[in-house]
Amino acid sequence: MAEGKVVVAIPLFYRFTALDGVGPYELLHMVPGVTVRFVSAQAGEAVTADNGMMHLLSTASFQDLPRPDIIVVPGGPGTSAALQDPVFMDWLKTAHETSSYTTSVCSGSLALAAAGLLQGLEATSHWSCYEDLAKLGAVPTDKRVVRQGKIITSAGVSSGIDMALHLITLFKGEEMAKMIQLLVEYDPQPPYDVGSPKKAGELLMEKTEVLCEIFENTLPPPK
Amino acid sequence: MAEGKVVVAIPLFYRFTALDGVGPYELLHMVPGVTVRFVSAQAGEAVTADNGMMHLLSTASFQDLPRPDIIVVPGGPGTSAALQDPVFMDWLKTAHETSSYTTSVCSGSLALAAAGLLQGLEATSHWSCYEDLAKLGAVPTDKRVVRQGKIITSAGVSSGIDMALHLITLFKGEEMAKMIQLLVEYDPQPPYDVGSPKKAGELLMEKTEVLCEIFENTLPPPK
Repeated sequence: MAEGKVVVAIPLFYRFTALDGVGPYELLHMVPGVTVRFVSAQAGEAVTADNGMMHLLSTASFQDLPRPDIIVVPGGPGTSAALQDPVFMDWLKTAHETSSYTTSVCSGSLALAAAGLLQGLEATSHWSCYEDLAKLGAVPTDKRVVRQGKIITSAGVSSGIDMALHLITLFKGEEMAKMIQLLVEYDPQPPYDVGSPKKAGELLMEKTEVLCEIFENTLPPPK
Repeated sequence: MAEGKVVVAIPLFYRFTALDGVGPYELLHMVPGVTVRFVSAQAGEAVTADNGMMHLLSTASFQDLPRPDIIVVPGGPGTSAALQDPVFMDWLKTAHETSSYTTSVCSGSLALAAAGLLQGLEATSHWSCYEDLAKLGAVPTDKRVVRQGKIITSAGVSSGIDMALHLITLFKGEEMAKMIQLLVEYDPQPPYDVGSPKKAGELLMEKTEVLCEIFENTLPPPK
């Protein structure tokens, strides 16, 4: 990361989860010297998030950006298809070789694992993905943010905000991370305390698993 | 809100803050029966967020969507210009007449106030906007989420996630809100406790105010 200039790449794929990417984007792009690029096969294409209600423009192609300083891989209902995309997966493997940090939010850690980056390493993911993560050779944990050398994985969707604060601390120091936290007024006050399987209890978990499946299987309308 | 179908409108404007809109979008669109539309002057246009590193497609025009059930107005460095846009402001005033809930995140509350919806009412905003909010006739408070009848305002950027959980509770009940919280694994664990002016202390506040000005005055590159 030369002279304080930092390029962050957030790869996009069909049915990525928007907040997985936009949470870290928002905090990271406010750090002076940081440029965030949303990367996909074709620069400028609209990439459909989640269930088709949101479309984000990519701002670089994979080819344009082979050596970002930081990689933030989002998850989402489209993750399993993305693992089968050789252009994305080859980019991830190559970009990781020279990155300063390679990170993931939510089921984005499955892409890191499928790229062979998490073999035998502790890692986290959305709670619905622990088994898949283990099958790909990682050691799943329910911690919110897990650092293993230059690799950082974080838990479901909203955890990317916490992860970004850890990441900013690593490359810009604690004071900058605190300023960014204050700038985005991250003083969380959820009305309930059920944001993890442990805290939610069995009944709520069962019902939410059903909702999770409905969400994953609701296909966006064709274009 | 007929037969459980709920249409949420998130108006977009040049230099809106992405997370202000995408935070609530992510939680709301997972509720069965909810459709979220991103609204701007022309359906399908790309709207540039923040400092030009992100572009979101609108999915409806103001004309397409005169009577949404719920309105979520984001803030951002572009808010003061948006207050001068008669098409946006007229839409907001008219849409509010029939909405079930009219809400804002961050400096989005300035738009509600400028539309005359917050006269004499307690409301919140990003901490940098309390004075402007008072000038527009509201009674600023540093609470994170403030409900006044069908109007809900919330604090800076990240507060939209907390606000969305309150909102889902109101129109779909506590259990649905809890399921959504668990689905997005919203179990916040920021590494620091400096997310509000009160908690940050004077020195960090002063430095962050400087960063905030730099951010607001860094113009996106011309197209």
